[in-house]
Amino acid sequence: MTSLDSKEWALKSRPVGMPQPSDFEMREVPVPAPEEGEIQVRNSWMSVDPYMRGRMIDRESYVPPFQIGETLQGGAVGRVTASRHPDYEEGDLVSSMAGWREAWTAKPESVAARKLPEAGLPEEAFLGVAGMPGLTAYAGILRIGELKEGDTVFVSGAAGAVGSVVCQIAKIRNCTVIGSAGGPEKCDFVNSLGVDHVIDYKQAGGFDGLVAALREAAPKGIDVYFDNVGGDHLAAAIEVARPFARMAICGMISQYNNTQPAPGPHNIIMVVGKQLKLQGFIVSSHTDMQPQFVSDMASWISSGQLKYEETVREGIENAPEAFIGLFEGANKGKMLVRLS
Amino acid sequence: MTSLDSKEWALKSRPVGMPQPSDFEMREVPVPAPEEGEIQVRNSWMSVDPYMRGRMIDRESYVPPFQIGETLQGGAVGRVTASRHPDYEEGDLVSSMAGWREAWTAKPESVAARKLPEAGLPEEAFLGVAGMPGLTAYAGILRIGELKEGDTVFVSGAAGAVGSVVCQIAKIRNCTVIGSAGGPEKCDFVNSLGVDHVIDYKQAGGFDGLVAALREAAPKGIDVYFDNVGGDHLAAAIEVARPFARMAICGMISQYNNTQPAPGPHNIIMVVGKQLKLQGFIVSSHTDMQPQFVSDMASWISSGQLKYEETVREGIENAPEAFIGLFEGANKGKMLVRLS
Repeated sequence: MTSLDSKEWALKSRPVGMPQPSDFEMREVPVPAPEEGEIQVRNSWMSVDPYMRGRMIDRESYVPPFQIGETLQGGAVGRVTASRHPDYEEGDLVSSMAGWREAWTAKPESVAARKLPEAGLPEEAFLGVAGMPGLTAYAGILRIGELKEGDTVFVSGAAGAVGSVVCQIAKIRNCTVIGSAGGPEKCDFVNSLGVDHVIDYKQAGGFDGLVAALREAAPKGIDVYFDNVGGDHLAAAIEVARPFARMAICGMISQYNNTQPAPGPHNIIMVVGKQLKLQGFIVSSHTDMQPQFVSDMASWISSGQLKYEETVREGIENAPEAFIGLFEGANKGKMLVRLS
Repeated sequence: MTSLDSKEWALKSRPVGMPQPSDFEMREVPVPAPEEGEIQVRNSWMSVDPYMRGRMIDRESYVPPFQIGETLQGGAVGRVTASRHPDYEEGDLVSSMAGWREAWTAKPESVAARKLPEAGLPEEAFLGVAGMPGLTAYAGILRIGELKEGDTVFVSGAAGAVGSVVCQIAKIRNCTVIGSAGGPEKCDFVNSLGVDHVIDYKQAGGFDGLVAALREAAPKGIDVYFDNVGGDHLAAAIEVARPFARMAICGMISQYNNTQPAPGPHNIIMVVGKQLKLQGFIVSSHTDMQPQFVSDMASWISSGQLKYEETVREGIENAPEAFIGLFEGANKGKMLVRLS
């Protein structure tokens, strides 16, 4: 049991619009040996996720905002290097919310730590396909989207950590799947997931273009829309929705860096005549699905029905760049930072 | 069995923006004696409803658009004057979609006619509280709004045929109810229904004013919003919604006469963090609730728990004015035209 040194990131200033590297500040701190009830962990991977942008705003929300000068938080996986907690041993694999740092010492419950199974999956899968983004996809499409066999499903952000899993679950359930993503490289990736149609939204160009592309891909309209993007995508989904369509609203990444509120969908009135359901959700409200999720996911991955991709940045120094990259479309699948 | 004369209204031109009297055309036609399988009916009351505005637009929708020069349609009640149909006798009370006319002869099924019970209610109640608007309120607040005892409920258009019933059902279920209406006379009416708070939206003045009034009436936020209005009301409801709030979207009367699409709610992104459900619905999808609805409604009316008001225009000549009045806020409760 020794103390370690850890580089970690704090918020230096609240971003206005697109986050800038200058909004972040790195420092090196000692990580002490654990006291009674604590564990010491060296993180091997940390996650950057779009929802973190919301926590950088000083407002009331479902998670409290990050404070200026305090170390940032987020998903991480690592190995226990020392333990004075009865449930943990040196070498245990743990996930926690103590990301944005190389190592930490804390009571496990204070950082939402839990031991992970050695399930034959690479460690970092627990930050992606077998972790929070995977469960987000699973709960969102099955419970909120009320997915039925044979539905026509539209997924925005289809090359992302969540969207790519949504597309594949819908294909496993014998649905027709249309994914949208930005640029040829990501569209190729979405195609490789086995979807039926891919829309390059950068080529489609705005609401009218998206509607035209959707009408071509789904002449009878869509039954389910999984929204990671908001804006024109949501309006286009409403426009081509069939009666009783369900829209699972997971995020609106197109809006996160807005400095002024953007207008909502101009065709919202269609929710009445088409009897649409728009429903927002947060993964933490659906943890009751975790056991079934892990079981389904393990079986789909091992059978080759579900593939995943990662975009990796190397080293804690590159964490802000990885995060900013989320809003520049720099990732295919899960964006990760390798820490050790 | 004789033929009758009937005055009836057709659409002369498709309204642009607010409907004008010149968009309508009255004519007198003979109503023949019935042939085999037909009934002849003299309407006693006809209904004008906001949804009819949508049918005046030439577009694909859940009901086909009205055609220029054809007699308009809508809810009506009347008495059979002659019958060559085995299920109907002279004097039977019937509801039908053959409104906008004084009398008609047709096969019952061609105008969605059905015999009404002589339930001790005045005939015109079957166009309002015991008819389509009543069932709209009932299905919307209970099924779509998922009303629970103790909820805080916000109802727009609270002085209208639907809204006034929604308010009272929510009070019967021990909820805190906030109703909004335009002008002192309507607000007095909403108050008389026993709601907890009334907002005069004309005094509140737009989104900010509505939000302020709602925060005062419901400091902890709202659990259910029943939307008859759209626009600023919907955005204000989203703004003050509590987590997991349900929004039953019944209509958006503030939008029906728009010549350009209005922007949707600028704060739609809040549906994610607050995990809101926005769900549109049409009464015809919920006719399975009819038996329970009639039973509950009869018991609530006879016990005095549920009151209703009507605004009556006299004579077929005044039907367009009654309809246009819906968009000018001319009605408290159900707007009706007495035909005989």
